[in-house]
Amino acid sequence: MSFDCTVLTMFPDAFPGPLGVSLIGTAWREAALWSLETVDIRAFSTDKRGFLDDTPAGGGPGQVMRADVIASALDSVERRGRPLLYMSARGRPLTQARVKEWAQAPGLIVLCGRFEGVDQRVLDARGFEEVSVGDAVLAGGEAAAMVAIEACVRLVPGVLGQAESLSEESFEDGLLEHPQYTRPRTFEGLEIPEVLLSGNHAAIRKWRQEQREATTRERRPDLWAARTANQQAKGAPDPKKGQAQ
Amino acid sequence: MSFDCTVLTMFPDAFPGPLGVSLIGTAWREAALWSLETVDIRAFSTDKRGFLDDTPAGGGPGQVMRADVIASALDSVERRGRPLLYMSARGRPLTQARVKEWAQAPGLIVLCGRFEGVDQRVLDARGFEEVSVGDAVLAGGEAAAMVAIEACVRLVPGVLGQAESLSEESFEDGLLEHPQYTRPRTFEGLEIPEVLLSGNHAAIRKWRQEQREATTRERRPDLWAARTANQQAKGAPDPKKGQAQ
Repeated sequence: MSFDCTVLTMFPDAFPGPLGVSLIGTAWREAALWSLETVDIRAFSTDKRGFLDDTPAGGGPGQVMRADVIASALDSVERRGRPLLYMSARGRPLTQARVKEWAQAPGLIVLCGRFEGVDQRVLDARGFEEVSVGDAVLAGGEAAAMVAIEACVRLVPGVLGQAESLSEESFEDGLLEHPQYTRPRTFEGLEIPEVLLSGNHAAIRKWRQEQREATTRERRPDLWAARTANQQAKGAPDPKKGQAQ
Repeated sequence: MSFDCTVLTMFPDAFPGPLGVSLIGTAWREAALWSLETVDIRAFSTDKRGFLDDTPAGGGPGQVMRADVIASALDSVERRGRPLLYMSARGRPLTQARVKEWAQAPGLIVLCGRFEGVDQRVLDARGFEEVSVGDAVLAGGEAAAMVAIEACVRLVPGVLGQAESLSEESFEDGLLEHPQYTRPRTFEGLEIPEVLLSGNHAAIRKWRQEQREATTRERRPDLWAARTANQQAKGAPDPKKGQAQ
C-alpha cells in the first residue's frame, strides 16, 4: 500500500525538488512505495484572468487566497482519509510525534499558501491542520511542504531500507542526537574523542547520553524543560535534586 | 549587490525547487537580486569509488560524512564573509530574528547533510551554525536549506516588491499573525467576521490584536511565555494582573 501525497499549489514546478532525489526519490519512481501528485490551484479560479486572490477583509497590505477556489481545488481530490495540512507560520510547529502519526495514514494532502495566506473559513470548514516549520516567514508553503512530506515518507516501511537508522535519532525520548565522528582519526589536528575509540561500549553509551543531554540543555531549553516536567510527572527522580546531593 | 547563496549538497538536482518559482525565482533569474549555486560534495571524495562517508566512531548504525571531504568542498568556495549554516535536527531552531541578521550578509553558505550527519570536527573547525526547521528528522538537509534560503531571500530589498507586506506578519513583536478573510462575503454559509466589514479601523485593529494574542497563547505557549517574560523585564504591566483587576 502506497503512501500517497497530494500537494495543492500555485507552483507545481517547484516539485519534486528534494523529494525526487536519493532513497526518497528511488522509493517513489522505482519502488512505488509512495507517490507525489500536484494540483495546480490556478486551474480552479473562476475569474477570467485566472486570479484566485483578493484584498483582505478589513484592509491591510497584500492579497488573500479565496476560500471558494481552495475548496474547489481540494474537492477535486479524493480524500481517502488522508490528513489535511496547511503550511503556515501561524501553525503549530512540526514535531516528530505528529510526523509518526501522519506516516500511519494512507498519505497526506498538503496546501501551500502564497501572498498573505488563505481565507480562514476554508481551513476551518475542511479541517486543515496548520503546521509551521521554524519561526520564520516564507514566500510560500512549498519548501515547508517538502519538509513535512520528506519527514513522513522516510518513515514509510522500506523507503530507507538499512541505509539509515530510525531508532537512535534526534527527538527520540525528547533529546537531540549526540555528535558523530568518523575516519580519519585526526582532522586538522582535531582528534576523535578518545572514549569512542576505546571499545568500551558502556563508556561510549554513557558519553553519548551525556552529550545528548548537554546539547539539548544548551540548544533546546524548551525540549529540556518539557522532558524534565515529563519525568517528574512520571515520578522519576528529579535531576536537579540528584545534582544537589 | 546580490545576495549570493552557495549550497553544499550530494544532490544538486534537488535545486532550485521552490527557489526557482514565483517572485523569488524571477528575482534570481531575471533581476539578479540574488544567486544560487550548488557544489556537489561527491566531487571532493578522495576515494576511487566516490565514497565520502564512513562508519561512526564508537559504533552504531548508518554512515557519517567525512570531515576532510566536507572541508575540501567548503574550501573550494570563496567565503566572502558569508555565514555558514548546517541544517540539522541537532541545531537551534530557525527564527525570524536570525533570518533578518543573515539577510544583511553578502549571502549564505549552506551545508546539507545526509546519512547520520557530518563529522562534528569540521562543523566546529569551520564555525558552522547548526540550524533546525521543525522538530522532525529529515532524510537530508536540502528541503531545510530551501526554507532557510527562501526566508532570507524574501527580505532582500526589491525581491518581493509591493506584492507582499513585510511589516505585519507572524513573529513581529513575538506574536503570530491574525487570521485573514477575503471575498466572497459568504462561503458555504460562513460569514466574514462582521467587525472586518464595519469600516471601523480602531475596532478592526483591536480585534486583530486579540486574535493574534489568542492564537499565540493557544498554538505557541513557548512564544507567549517568552513575550510575557520580555514585557515584565521591560516593566510593562503584567497581563495576568490586568485580567484580575
